[in-house]
Amino acid sequence: MPELKIQHILTLSYLLSKGAKHNYVTITTSSLGKNIKKSQQSASKHLLELEQNQFIDRIISGRNISVKITSKGFSEMVKLSAILQKSLDSFPSHIELKGTLISGMGEGAYYMGLKGYTKQFKSKIGYIPFPGTLNVRLDQKIHQEAIKQFETLDGIKIKSFSDEKRTYGWVKCFPAKLNNSINCDLILLERTHHDNSVIELISKSCLRKTAKLKDGSKVTIKIPVNI
Amino acid sequence: MPELKIQHILTLSYLLSKGAKHNYVTITTSSLGKNIKKSQQSASKHLLELEQNQFIDRIISGRNISVKITSKGFSEMVKLSAILQKSLDSFPSHIELKGTLISGMGEGAYYMGLKGYTKQFKSKIGYIPFPGTLNVRLDQKIHQEAIKQFETLDGIKIKSFSDEKRTYGWVKCFPAKLNNSINCDLILLERTHHDNSVIELISKSCLRKTAKLKDGSKVTIKIPVNI
Repeated sequence: MPELKIQHILTLSYLLSKGAKHNYVTITTSSLGKNIKKSQQSASKHLLELEQNQFIDRIISGRNISVKITSKGFSEMVKLSAILQKSLDSFPSHIELKGTLISGMGEGAYYMGLKGYTKQFKSKIGYIPFPGTLNVRLDQKIHQEAIKQFETLDGIKIKSFSDEKRTYGWVKCFPAKLNNSINCDLILLERTHHDNSVIELISKSCLRKTAKLKDGSKVTIKIPVNI
Repeated sequence: MPELKIQHILTLSYLLSKGAKHNYVTITTSSLGKNIKKSQQSASKHLLELEQNQFIDRIISGRNISVKITSKGFSEMVKLSAILQKSLDSFPSHIELKGTLISGMGEGAYYMGLKGYTKQFKSKIGYIPFPGTLNVRLDQKIHQEAIKQFETLDGIKIKSFSDEKRTYGWVKCFPAKLNNSINCDLILLERTHHDNSVIELISKSCLRKTAKLKDGSKVTIKIPVNI
């Protein structure tokens, strides 16, 4: 495709809506200028570029400029629209993380076992997690950056609660697949001691056993995202 | 919208299909170069421009470049796709001609009345035309140019035929509306004495009477086009 700008496409769309597929549509460079938020001179140059790329035919009669979209121009619009639409309709809608299994501090097992959490887990994600979380260190910056998205995503919210002594923060759960096969949930904690490079997974059963993992194992986690 | 080129959009579509809405997708400038049919240097510049316009975020790690589409980049894709799709889905699909009524030479009446034509008219366009065609002179170049499209359109074909003396050429009919209200057919003749600036219309009844026209009347003709 030629070196045309997005604005050229928007102008073609405007002309098309005015009937320029089958007709020479008369426009003024000043109204086109307003339409594309440029000066009259720029609008004039803009039309010239569209003509040079054989996207439009122009007929000039006195002060009037009439333009018609060429079949090449039209087919480029159709092509671009199809490519955009296809990628927008079917792009992969999940976050993929890769990392290395590490040992946790046993905290996960303690907290996830608290009754204030377990009864919510049961009703909201359908199971009481195996006591103990799977800790995965994200080794690459691209994955450490990618998980920042979860901060703005809702997930399934396990509410904070309090006992006599203290308050326990909320937990957001995101259904995920470990190594493309095992169901689990990525959890995001309101309060955590980890930095952004460690994520925690919970599951109904012991993920280390189910997925045959040990410290140092490389794992992949896919989390569907519906936005 | 910024001054980005169509190719930038195609690259975004490519990245999107690789999962770059939610992930940092690792690419090499040489593979991107191949994809956009440019040199590695151009591909590198291309990514820089996308970043400068805040359409992508880049993470560079050694030789690897990983990119993720920003929410701004994604929303511009959605916006552009919507504009294109809307104009492609609903653009006016007719040719509009304007001209001045002139007197014919009576030829139309003679030819259209030949039995070899009338029986075909009856079966193919549903009526036997009033003997006499309405001649309209297209005064503007934009309309004289627009009717060239009919040469490549099929229309409804009235076949050529022969009698003992000679052969009569085919006629292509295009259902049309005169002055936005009166049904008629624009006819295109295999053989005509007119140049491109005069068109002929036929109808079941006398168009001059039905439309209250006389020589010099300004008329508008709309012809639906289904391509």
